[in-house]
Amino acid sequence: MKSDRIMLAHGSGGQLSEELVRSIFAPAFANPALAKMDDSAVLNFPLPAGEGQGEGSRLAITTDCHVVKPLFFEGGDIGRLAVCGTVNDVAMAGATPLYMTAGFILEEGLPIDTLKRVVASMKEAAEEAGIAIVAGDTKVVEQGGADGMFITTSAVGLVLDGVEVSGGNARPGDVVLLSGSVGDHGIAVLSRREGLEFGSPVASDVAPLNHLVAAMLEASPNLRCLRDPTRGGLATTLNEFASQSGVAIQVEEGLIPVQPAVQAACDMLGFDPLYVANEGKLVAVVPPEEAGRVLEAMHRTRYGEDARTIGRVLEKPAGKVLMKTRIGGTRIVQRLMGEMLPRIC
Amino acid sequence: MKSDRIMLAHGSGGQLSEELVRSIFAPAFANPALAKMDDSAVLNFPLPAGEGQGEGSRLAITTDCHVVKPLFFEGGDIGRLAVCGTVNDVAMAGATPLYMTAGFILEEGLPIDTLKRVVASMKEAAEEAGIAIVAGDTKVVEQGGADGMFITTSAVGLVLDGVEVSGGNARPGDVVLLSGSVGDHGIAVLSRREGLEFGSPVASDVAPLNHLVAAMLEASPNLRCLRDPTRGGLATTLNEFASQSGVAIQVEEGLIPVQPAVQAACDMLGFDPLYVANEGKLVAVVPPEEAGRVLEAMHRTRYGEDARTIGRVLEKPAGKVLMKTRIGGTRIVQRLMGEMLPRIC
Repeated sequence: MKSDRIMLAHGSGGQLSEELVRSIFAPAFANPALAKMDDSAVLNFPLPAGEGQGEGSRLAITTDCHVVKPLFFEGGDIGRLAVCGTVNDVAMAGATPLYMTAGFILEEGLPIDTLKRVVASMKEAAEEAGIAIVAGDTKVVEQGGADGMFITTSAVGLVLDGVEVSGGNARPGDVVLLSGSVGDHGIAVLSRREGLEFGSPVASDVAPLNHLVAAMLEASPNLRCLRDPTRGGLATTLNEFASQSGVAIQVEEGLIPVQPAVQAACDMLGFDPLYVANEGKLVAVVPPEEAGRVLEAMHRTRYGEDARTIGRVLEKPAGKVLMKTRIGGTRIVQRLMGEMLPRIC
Repeated sequence: MKSDRIMLAHGSGGQLSEELVRSIFAPAFANPALAKMDDSAVLNFPLPAGEGQGEGSRLAITTDCHVVKPLFFEGGDIGRLAVCGTVNDVAMAGATPLYMTAGFILEEGLPIDTLKRVVASMKEAAEEAGIAIVAGDTKVVEQGGADGMFITTSAVGLVLDGVEVSGGNARPGDVVLLSGSVGDHGIAVLSRREGLEFGSPVASDVAPLNHLVAAMLEASPNLRCLRDPTRGGLATTLNEFASQSGVAIQVEEGLIPVQPAVQAACDMLGFDPLYVANEGKLVAVVPPEEAGRVLEAMHRTRYGEDARTIGRVLEKPAGKVLMKTRIGGTRIVQRLMGEMLPRIC
């Protein structure tokens, strides 16, 4: 069904989001960086005049709008999310995040104390990531116009020498790594929003992953693909890699960690944790001979302790993600079509 | 009166906006770039390893949220505004705009044709400015949650060699230049929003000013201050320069151009055009011996044809803006205190 109006699913990170990009944004803003469909654009930043003979540095740049509802949830808030989400997109380009901007759209009547709490959380997350918030803007709209607060962050980073990371670089034989359990963030936000309880409370995993990425790149500058499975979850990220690289990706259900409370919540709500958003996890595709070294490096970092191999890259069927199920079968993991969890980030 | 809640005036660009920055954002995100309170932050962007002995390039970075209501108005729309507003903030740092990101917060139910019109307008403005839109994000919120569409743009630019532009650089004896008539944008948006007619329709001046700035810098690399008087208008920009530089600024009422239809609208509504937003004008402070050359360069560009001298910089009273009125008196031009025109950009 084609609609001539924007639907919630257009913001889901799934297939309708991609259609919006492909049909409206990409043709209008046509340029090679945008066409790569990675989390960050990587571009040349020129040298000052007269400086050396080189071509300048490689700059990674990205932006994310944050409309999470509610503003505060177990394990985080919109402020931490706004910093980490954007830091992570820069990190996923194999870049060191340097500078960030923050644009606030505030609803008239928002308690100033709420804003202070969010800003304090942003400060803490930025310090953890080691990024400076250097410019900002604030707009205020009438009551009912912005649902409390929206925050749009943008960041730039320096792509490290020799690093070439893109969702289009996976090759048959490569190994697929995942840094930890999936679905925590989406379930944490949903629980708070709907007032649901699923045994022990689920905390969001929202965290800056740049130090984890730096450790991985030090272990292997030949990392092929890096991405944080946010909206649309692990299933969407794997499908993006398969599609961008023109390969198949096979993962094993039994190797993908899901916290019991997250699984229980998903069972009750009819969700598949593979499609639930994460905000502190990453998926990496690495050459097979370097996978062990990368995993060791991940295990030594705070947010990579539970890292593991979940599958590998195959030649065919190109563009597809296959799942070996616990009972021994194989099924195709589809992309997210509609909107499962709106306002999750 | 102090409020413990966000008011529309916190987004006005005037005194309450500045208080919010000074009391909440600046202390939390403390860094020298933010502390300068210019339109863009200027920062070092490192060289790739092994590249020359230099210090790297200077990067200007900025962000703006756009919540203008209505989305379309005489002379422009939210898309053109979102591109030009951010291009101009980079240009006002004496930088060449290079790359831009765009974050869209869309309201469920927005006609896709509306989005297409806005995106086409962004494309046109970006082409005129010569900037590439290289990354983006789209979020969708429920009906009633975002008033159609909000767009947050961020941009980076390369600061030209030898250029040192800041609101803090004005010196006694300098000359104050203005690129054209004031108040057009604010009155254009207000007219459309309220369905008002004031004789001939007023068109917004929304335009990218980077080519104008490039021509000015070519004529005089010693430009002291550059700023586009958006929210809060010319009065606010002049007060910012006076306060940041610790000088007085004296302007002549008779030298500040106001279109007759804009003056008529302001008279009817009780506004002072000095406080009404512009989106295609700039104020510059230049050394007296270079003012003539800069004006000539401005006159040769599309958006600087009407440029003129409107005043000069004095030593005292420091931090104040003085206006020589048409009837021969002198008055102090205050900062904008409350919110005159909400949702103007």
